[in-house]
Amino acid sequence: TILIDTDGEAIGKINGLTVLSIGDSSFGAPARISATVYPGGRGIVDIEREANLGQNIHTKGVMILTGYLGHTYAQEFPLEVSASIAMEQSYGHVDGDSASLAEACALISALAHVPIHQSLAVTGSLSQYGEVQAVGGINEKIEGFFSICKARGLNGKQGVLIPASNVKHLVLKREVCDAVEAGEFHIYGIANIDQALEILMDKKAGQINKKGRFPRGSINYKVLERLRDIADIGKDEDHDDSDAKSRTDAQT
Amino acid sequence: TILIDTDGEAIGKINGLTVLSIGDSSFGAPARISATVYPGGRGIVDIEREANLGQNIHTKGVMILTGYLGHTYAQEFPLEVSASIAMEQSYGHVDGDSASLAEACALISALAHVPIHQSLAVTGSLSQYGEVQAVGGINEKIEGFFSICKARGLNGKQGVLIPASNVKHLVLKREVCDAVEAGEFHIYGIANIDQALEILMDKKAGQINKKGRFPRGSINYKVLERLRDIADIGKDEDHDDSDAKSRTDAQT
Amino acid sequence: TILIDTDGEAIGKINGLTVLSIGDSSFGAPARISATVYPGGRGIVDIEREANLGQNIHTKGVMILTGYLGHTYAQEFPLEVSASIAMEQSYGHVDGDSASLAEACALISALAHVPIHQSLAVTGSLSQYGEVQAVGGINEKIEGFFSICKARGLNGKQGVLIPASNVKHLVLKREVCDAVEAGEFHIYGIANIDQALEILMDKKAGQINKKGRFPRGSINYKVLERLRDIADIGKDEDHDDSDAKSRTDAQT
Amino acid sequence: TILIDTDGEAIGKINGLTVLSIGDSSFGAPARISATVYPGGRGIVDIEREANLGQNIHTKGVMILTGYLGHTYAQEFPLEVSASIAMEQSYGHVDGDSASLAEACALISALAHVPIHQSLAVTGSLSQYGEVQAVGGINEKIEGFFSICKARGLNGKQGVLIPASNVKHLVLKREVCDAVEAGEFHIYGIANIDQALEILMDKKAGQINKKGRFPRGSINYKVLERLRDIADIGKDEDHDDSDAKSRTDAQT
Amino acid sequence: TILIDTDGEAIGKINGLTVLSIGDSSFGAPARISATVYPGGRGIVDIEREANLGQNIHTKGVMILTGYLGHTYAQEFPLEVSASIAMEQSYGHVDGDSASLAEACALISALAHVPIHQSLAVTGSLSQYGEVQAVGGINEKIEGFFSICKARGLNGKQGVLIPASNVKHLVLKREVCDAVEAGEFHIYGIANIDQALEILMDKKAGQINKKGRFPRGSINYKVLERLRDIADIGKDEDHDDSDAKSRTDAQT
Amino acid sequence: TILIDTDGEAIGKINGLTVLSIGDSSFGAPARISATVYPGGRGIVDIEREANLGQNIHTKGVMILTGYLGHTYAQEFPLEVSASIAMEQSYGHVDGDSASLAEACALISALAHVPIHQSLAVTGSLSQYGEVQAVGGINEKIEGFFSICKARGLNGKQGVLIPASNVKHLVLKREVCDAVEAGEFHIYGIANIDQALEILMDKKAGQINKKGRFPRGSINYKVLERLRDIADIGKDEDHDDSDAKSRTDAQT
Ligand SMILES: [Ca+2]
Ligand SMILES: [Ca+2]
Ligand SMILES: [Ca+2]
Ligand SMILES: [Ca+2]
Ligand SMILES: [Ca+2]
Ligand SMILES: [Ca+2]
Ligand SMILES: [Ca+2]
Ligand SMILES: [Ca+2]
Ligand SMILES: [Ca+2]
Ligand SMILES: [Ca+2]
Ligand SMILES: [Ca+2]
Ligand SMILES: [Ca+2]
Repeated sequence: TILIDTDGEAIGKINGLTVLSIGDSSFGAPARISATVYPGGRGIVDIEREANLGQNIHTKGVMILTGYLGHTYAQEFPLEVSASIAMEQSYGHVDGDSASLAEACALISALAHVPIHQSLAVTGSLSQYGEVQAVGGINEKIEGFFSICKARGLNGKQGVLIPASNVKHLVLKREVCDAVEAGEFHIYGIANIDQALEILMDKKAGQINKKGRFPRGSINYKVLERLRDIADIGKDEDHDDSDAKSRTDAQT
Repeated sequence: TILIDTDGEAIGKINGLTVLSIGDSSFGAPARISATVYPGGRGIVDIEREANLGQNIHTKGVMILTGYLGHTYAQEFPLEVSASIAMEQSYGHVDGDSASLAEACALISALAHVPIHQSLAVTGSLSQYGEVQAVGGINEKIEGFFSICKARGLNGKQGVLIPASNVKHLVLKREVCDAVEAGEFHIYGIANIDQALEILMDKKAGQINKKGRFPRGSINYKVLERLRDIADIGKDEDHDDSDAKSRTDAQT
Repeated sequence: TILIDTDGEAIGKINGLTVLSIGDSSFGAPARISATVYPGGRGIVDIEREANLGQNIHTKGVMILTGYLGHTYAQEFPLEVSASIAMEQSYGHVDGDSASLAEACALISALAHVPIHQSLAVTGSLSQYGEVQAVGGINEKIEGFFSICKARGLNGKQGVLIPASNVKHLVLKREVCDAVEAGEFHIYGIANIDQALEILMDKKAGQINKKGRFPRGSINYKVLERLRDIADIGKDEDHDDSDAKSRTDAQT
Repeated sequence: TILIDTDGEAIGKINGLTVLSIGDSSFGAPARISATVYPGGRGIVDIEREANLGQNIHTKGVMILTGYLGHTYAQEFPLEVSASIAMEQSYGHVDGDSASLAEACALISALAHVPIHQSLAVTGSLSQYGEVQAVGGINEKIEGFFSICKARGLNGKQGVLIPASNVKHLVLKREVCDAVEAGEFHIYGIANIDQALEILMDKKAGQINKKGRFPRGSINYKVLERLRDIADIGKDEDHDDSDAKSRTDAQT
Repeated sequence: TILIDTDGEAIGKINGLTVLSIGDSSFGAPARISATVYPGGRGIVDIEREANLGQNIHTKGVMILTGYLGHTYAQEFPLEVSASIAMEQSYGHVDGDSASLAEACALISALAHVPIHQSLAVTGSLSQYGEVQAVGGINEKIEGFFSICKARGLNGKQGVLIPASNVKHLVLKREVCDAVEAGEFHIYGIANIDQALEILMDKKAGQINKKGRFPRGSINYKVLERLRDIADIGKDEDHDDSDAKSRTDAQT
Repeated sequence: TILIDTDGEAIGKINGLTVLSIGDSSFGAPARISATVYPGGRGIVDIEREANLGQNIHTKGVMILTGYLGHTYAQEFPLEVSASIAMEQSYGHVDGDSASLAEACALISALAHVPIHQSLAVTGSLSQYGEVQAVGGINEKIEGFFSICKARGLNGKQGVLIPASNVKHLVLKREVCDAVEAGEFHIYGIANIDQALEILMDKKAGQINKKGRFPRGSINYKVLERLRDIADIGKDEDHDDSDAKSRTDAQT
């Protein structure tokens, strides 16, 4: 059973790319990553870690992601959010930080309420300043996602986002190269998370200006406003229905 | 001694389906799951985990359930609840996430004060976005619950809720098939938790509208109102009898 | 030295029933369980667990007890209590959940300031919804308490509370049966904690009505009022002598 | 070097009685226990436990002591105290609960600002309700303290407090018996902590009345007033010099 | 792939110098260290430690850095900051405290919003009072950074900051000595962190005066103002846009 | 490289005396201990312990030091301080409590902003009530510090503070005895921490009077005022520049 979507769009869900090694051979296996967000002081919960399934480097990746989030959005208010990141239907140990870009994008989608194209898959390691860093197994990962898409029928929108610094490592099977050349499958080399967000969401990420503001309506603007509202909720004395309005104002 | 009810209804209790393996053979064993809820900041306590009886995947299941709950209901106020989930009279280690749908339903029943049909049993893995995912041992689980019901006498309302993606794996004993065909036993394929709640509680789950509201009187409406009231309680300065009114208003 | 009382009454203390195994033989050994309560946010502290003397199942039992308490009494205010439960003069590891009913009764006595008959002893496992579940070693436990009482001289009020579902397992020594028949010793089959409380305290437990109230003067009423007052104390700004009045009002 | 005082009086310090086993022989070794108290939310810190020097039963003893303290004094306000209990100059592991009565008395002395006679030494296990329970090695402990006192010269005020239930186990050396008969050394059998406090401090412990009050000027009154003031400090907004008055009023 | 910059400037990023040992030979390997800062109570998070990648001495180094920061800047308000320090793209264990000066400089850059010259690399151990202490492997570290710079082409601004107490240990390769003499590569002996900051940022560090003030516009002034504003944010009741002004005032 | 100062004075730094054992021989090795202080609720952080470098007895020593500090200074307000104690440039495990007097003095210097003579070194174990207790290796420790001072040239102010109860154990090398007799090196036998503070700081420690006050300008007065101000800071709503005045008033 293939558990991921390769079409349509969804909030808080993204296709990650993992590599499975069985004996001498290894092959790429896409996996769905999900993120949820709600007010509270639990911070960004790495479910794999909490369940003793995440190994050291994976833990480090999620912590760096947290540093990126705090630095980028939470300069004027405390990061008082509860968020959970999970590899859905993954039942073994998870290591490596090659999912950290995908995890960050899922979380940003959940925060901004902006959907992600499920026809795309993502691999890449995130730095604390949003740079996308090279990962291993890049060819297997791409070929793994390609074969699922091909089996289901290529729809012309499918493809993968990989670190720009990995582009020079590409040695792909002929059928993948052909599909890319024919415009039936896409490989995007990505240098930073904002580039990834714009491709995944078809929307401007939005650059911060000198006053510390993002352009109204941009992805980053929506994230910052949602985080500010969540920080407000933690401070409010009463949560009766009248508070509902503050939610609406953040989502326009 | 069979410790579960197969008739009537109850708040906060549900029949889960587990598989016991003894030597080479394995068979299905229903087990009662209970959930309780009260104000406070302890979060959703997984009693199996706290008592070092829950293994990694079970822990992951309850954490994903928490993400689902926070995301679905607690967008306008903090999730300041204390809840406990337990496998009653289970004295060994618990692993797997196939109980997470049942655990979520028990918790929602406790929150909404809406009873669950004890004539039904549930298996399925929950995603952070409420999707029901496939589980193992599906045939043994169904046959295990069927034989208890049969021993006590089928009452026509009994049956099981299983993941829709498991329906294709069904290879059941003749007597179960016959009972299903005769309408004496029911097998429901479930794609998401709202479908499960509606069958278990005979009530509309309620879809969220664009303003972030559930239909008045629906299960989800009641859960959200109860969680909001609990968040209010954590903020109130004085808990004298006059607060009791705020409870009543949430339960009408 | 026998360390328990088999006569009189006391607040916060109860006779539990344990089984000791030495080599091939096992025999029942009563043990005093005590509970204390005071304002604060430490929750219900299981001293055996904190001292690394309580094993997994015992821990689970105390956590289920906490769920029962929160669900039953703390619906309108947070459960901001500090309570300690201990097996007095027990110096080895403690496992099993057969003491959880007794532990809950001791705690309720400490909360309600209502004394427990020390002429009685209790065994049984509590569910999150107050049901009393079967336990092991029932005959040894009863005979163990009976021989202490007999050695000290039966006073006609002595006896044991056991789970109703254990009654069918009873195969007691002749002298115990004779004493029971003669009304010199009592065996009470108990289905839920309220039945236990009424026998142990000679007072109505009190059923909750539709408005979420217990009858004034009942055991459960006193528990709820004491917990509400403790929650108030945690919120009050100043603890000078004038606060003492709020204590009095809860204890009339 | 003998590290304890056997004369005079001091606040927050007490002579405990331990047994050292070297090879086949064991002998009693007095040890100074100290307790300090100050406002804050750290609770009662068992320094042996925090430094991984206290074993399970010792930990249990200090937790039971905490339950006693909370139950006896902190009914109208939270137990928001920071206190530290240490075995001074003890560098090995500590087990057993036979020091818990002494530890409680040192803590009460530090709270009440009432000095303890250093001519006395204490052994005994405390229950959550203040009862003093039997301990092991009673003869070695008494003889150990007696020989130090004798070496320094008996002053007529020296002696030991032991559990009343241990009196029947006494088989002491002739010279100890002679000294006791001659009124040069004292052995006090103690049933509860209030009896111990009165001998150690030459002051009424004070019984609680129906209104929950201790007699003005009694030891227990002073403890309760000091704990109430500490709870007040935790609530006050500003700690400038003007607060000093609230300390004075509790100590008259 | 060389993952560091050896030109330009950046906020919150710095080149550290590590030593890798493979078999008998060891060589210097520069590594990028990053730091991010945002309001909240998580403190200074050492990501290596949290991910179980940092060993004891590295942990100690980051804790000493925390003491330095608290002592130097947070005397008039609580250090209520969330900060993360990471060795980017380091996937093994990290030990030693020779990165603590670099880590402190990265953090101060992130706090002050003042960029660091990426043409420089730093090694040195920080004391709680800002002194720079000697480290091991000084020659390999310098030569390691020199060869990267040389391979990319020396730009005249490149160089290393090392502890002044290490200068006497220098025994460098001829080509490094030649480059230093020719003014093409620089070696700075540093006695305290303020000297390091001034070279890394081309700006006055700023000495504290008797009133506890740093000169307006100095690095230390900016750090203190940013930390004060973050402490303010933690106290504010509402985080709406009007708070943004307080950010601006700290950055002029 | 000798890493300590043997001349001048400094705030928050002190020379401790440790013993190193290599094979059969052991010799004294002075080590710098530093302490920093700032507002916040982290308590007194023992960096050795946090970095898993401090062993049990060292941990116990720092906890006893905390009890001393709380008891002596924090009677009227909570001990809401963040402080860090470190053995600078110590990279191995640390055990024993013979540094606890020195650690306490460094912390008090950091709190009172009063410098310590670096020409002196300190060894001794502190009790919760400020008594200085005997330690081991006293001769090696003194000789170790003497030879560093001699190598640098004796300045007539150098010397060591040792527990008074260790004076009887002194069997020092001839050259040390000669220097002491000639007034070129000093050995001070210390019974309590106040005596140590007065020698280390050339200032009155200050005895507490019946109203709980220390004499204005004494060391203990300054510590208490600084701790009170820190407790105030934790309570203040806003930390803008106007708060700076409260710092000034504590330091006059
Ligand atoms: Ca808003
Ligand atoms: Ca707002
Ligand atoms: Ca409401
Ligand atoms: Ca309300
Ligand atoms: Ca009340
Ligand atoms: Ca009230
Ligand atoms: Ca008062
Ligand atoms: Ca007051
Ligand atoms: Ca400001
Ligand atoms: Ca402000
Ligand atoms: Ca002040
Ligand atoms: Ca003030």
